[in-house]
Amino acid sequence: MTVAELQVTSIDGSVAAPEGFRATGVSCGIKSKGLDLALIVSDVTASAAAVFTTNKAQAAPVLVSKQRLAASGGRARVIAINSGCANACTGPEGHVTADAMADSAANAVGSDPSDVLVASTGVIGVALDRAKVIAGIQGAAAALTRDGGPLAARAIMTTDPFPKEKAVLVDTPIGRFTVGGIAKGSGMIEPLMATMLAVVTTDAGVPPALLQRALQDVTEVTFNAISVDGECSTNDCVFALANGASGVAIGEAELPVFIEALRRVCEPLAIGIVRGGEGATKLVTIDVTGGASAVEAKRAARAIANSPLVKTAIHGADPNWGRLVAVAGRAGVAFNPESARVQLGDVELFANGRPYDERAPEASRHLQQSDVRVRVDLGTGGAGTARMWTCDLSAEYVRINAEYRT
Amino acid sequence: MTVAELQVTSIDGSVAAPEGFRATGVSCGIKSKGLDLALIVSDVTASAAAVFTTNKAQAAPVLVSKQRLAASGGRARVIAINSGCANACTGPEGHVTADAMADSAANAVGSDPSDVLVASTGVIGVALDRAKVIAGIQGAAAALTRDGGPLAARAIMTTDPFPKEKAVLVDTPIGRFTVGGIAKGSGMIEPLMATMLAVVTTDAGVPPALLQRALQDVTEVTFNAISVDGECSTNDCVFALANGASGVAIGEAELPVFIEALRRVCEPLAIGIVRGGEGATKLVTIDVTGGASAVEAKRAARAIANSPLVKTAIHGADPNWGRLVAVAGRAGVAFNPESARVQLGDVELFANGRPYDERAPEASRHLQQSDVRVRVDLGTGGAGTARMWTCDLSAEYVRINAEYRT
Repeated sequence: MTVAELQVTSIDGSVAAPEGFRATGVSCGIKSKGLDLALIVSDVTASAAAVFTTNKAQAAPVLVSKQRLAASGGRARVIAINSGCANACTGPEGHVTADAMADSAANAVGSDPSDVLVASTGVIGVALDRAKVIAGIQGAAAALTRDGGPLAARAIMTTDPFPKEKAVLVDTPIGRFTVGGIAKGSGMIEPLMATMLAVVTTDAGVPPALLQRALQDVTEVTFNAISVDGECSTNDCVFALANGASGVAIGEAELPVFIEALRRVCEPLAIGIVRGGEGATKLVTIDVTGGASAVEAKRAARAIANSPLVKTAIHGADPNWGRLVAVAGRAGVAFNPESARVQLGDVELFANGRPYDERAPEASRHLQQSDVRVRVDLGTGGAGTARMWTCDLSAEYVRINAEYRT
Repeated sequence: MTVAELQVTSIDGSVAAPEGFRATGVSCGIKSKGLDLALIVSDVTASAAAVFTTNKAQAAPVLVSKQRLAASGGRARVIAINSGCANACTGPEGHVTADAMADSAANAVGSDPSDVLVASTGVIGVALDRAKVIAGIQGAAAALTRDGGPLAARAIMTTDPFPKEKAVLVDTPIGRFTVGGIAKGSGMIEPLMATMLAVVTTDAGVPPALLQRALQDVTEVTFNAISVDGECSTNDCVFALANGASGVAIGEAELPVFIEALRRVCEPLAIGIVRGGEGATKLVTIDVTGGASAVEAKRAARAIANSPLVKTAIHGADPNWGRLVAVAGRAGVAFNPESARVQLGDVELFANGRPYDERAPEASRHLQQSDVRVRVDLGTGGAGTARMWTCDLSAEYVRINAEYRT
């Protein structure tokens, strides 16, 4: 079975679209209004995989989920997530609360305590109200439904401008399975990090080790290929559950196909996070080619994605290619300005050490669109390529992040 | 002679304050208005040292200055600088222009061509008008005076809100010498990088190798310890000239004293660049302690200095210590959140894993001042410390950098 034999069809629904999953979102009073607790449950214990923040200050729910995932040997049935409070930098009490959150979810759903993963997103350094979150979990357990995925997608939002959800039906020569997912990005209801959470589910059967490998591969080119402001939170995590309910079993041979199916859900979720980035008015797709290696190409792409001068120029539709050359030159990778190329949309503005400023008006017209493409060839002659997505930097970003508590 | 025996007195003047230096600034039409060409000349050939941008896309004047400094074996008499055009990404013609700039300065002043250093700052990717810059150099050579330093300080500005200049009289047991300097920072007259240039002069006698070592040491804790927006331009350079006119000779034994004297000029110039940063309303001094090493402490300080979430919070006077913990945790250095500390002004907001949010109003009052202090202890128990200076991130920064050509 090859990736070419894969047929992928978008369907309604999200994290409970795959067979054997139920979900919901409820309000338990952590946020002043709106849904703030999501519960996602597989009918049977599923393979589980996770990618966690690399931040050395890790929130209590991150530590608890790591412990439980290790204890279960890569299996889980339940994921409980609250928004409105990150339960980060909250000391030993915060750890007790995250454990209580997991235990109460196990109890409410009737699963083994080691089969629960938890996550939190919201304000840092404020205690998570234990009674509220436990009451919310109990209420949610009673409200789980097959079509509750969209509620879960809304319950994990902070001030994301819209929910991020995606589901696809995957047809392959060995059968049909479904992949669904939800994600939340950066918003601000409290002083919070650009916290990113995502949950992906599938009714394919995937052994834990393969699921973990697939999730890491896909995260690298989706959730780890986006940037709103270069910040990395204390709470970021991506979870995957695979419960096998479709009867399709993924082994080593089918892994490339499964990875592609997973990517088809994670990529739109990741792009949704960028489109809903704080103050964002444009989605910017950055393609870097000609790197000495893929790692170097990604490093250059990341430097461009996080450059305030590039992001403000794009915000103002200024085809300022000199800033792209300068960022590529400082990115700490091999770069040859004599053979480098810079392109905005289809307009080449710099090539072989020579500017083409007469094309600036055409490039500016491209930058006035809401979807912008930047291409930089590093000029090394190498085969390293990378793609990243970012948004522009607007005065609204500053306003959102400066005006809390003032 | 020890650093304790040093007496440093601020005096008027700048880069021509030391004996045996003359300078001026003239207008030659590269900018639409104002001074745009600075010339700094030592009566005799001086020891010369330089620190250049690490960007792999280096402007023609950077390459020419490197070549001439190598050819002269660390000696120079003349520094010619234009503003309004960076002469970067301008291909072979740009290199010819930078060479012509140096040769015409040598000719106008009567120095050896290898004794000239050149620098440019302004728009990237636009040809520098060779006839204008040569005419400017000739005019400036005829206008050199002992009190022309302030004119030179103004002629290297782009849209810096004020000139950066400093001079000190240094009394030591082995005699008196003078150190003076000028610098320019980030502004925007054209689509340009946050280009930083500085020239420091002294009438102390310092062998080239010692001058280079001193300049690198001092640059590390001054010009390399500031950040406006984390960008690194194609044109950044710092030059030092030491002509020995004071009769004071600096050898290995006196080097610590000379380094301290140099620092006393470079630090206020560097801080001036931050105060005049694009859109800046506050100067932020960041002290990091408890690092596993000084290098790690500086890496953490730099991550904080470049964090948009920290910089917007400070702009809004929001004592959001959680963002500082999160940045320290993602800085790629050893960090222990259980024993880390965060302080704004004199107010400790996080210590031993516990927040002190009741002190937030007092911290907010500190952040409302124009000079703000941030202290983060990384909690490793190590002795590594570092200081950096940055500014806040305002909507005005976005406006300045977005609205060109729109």
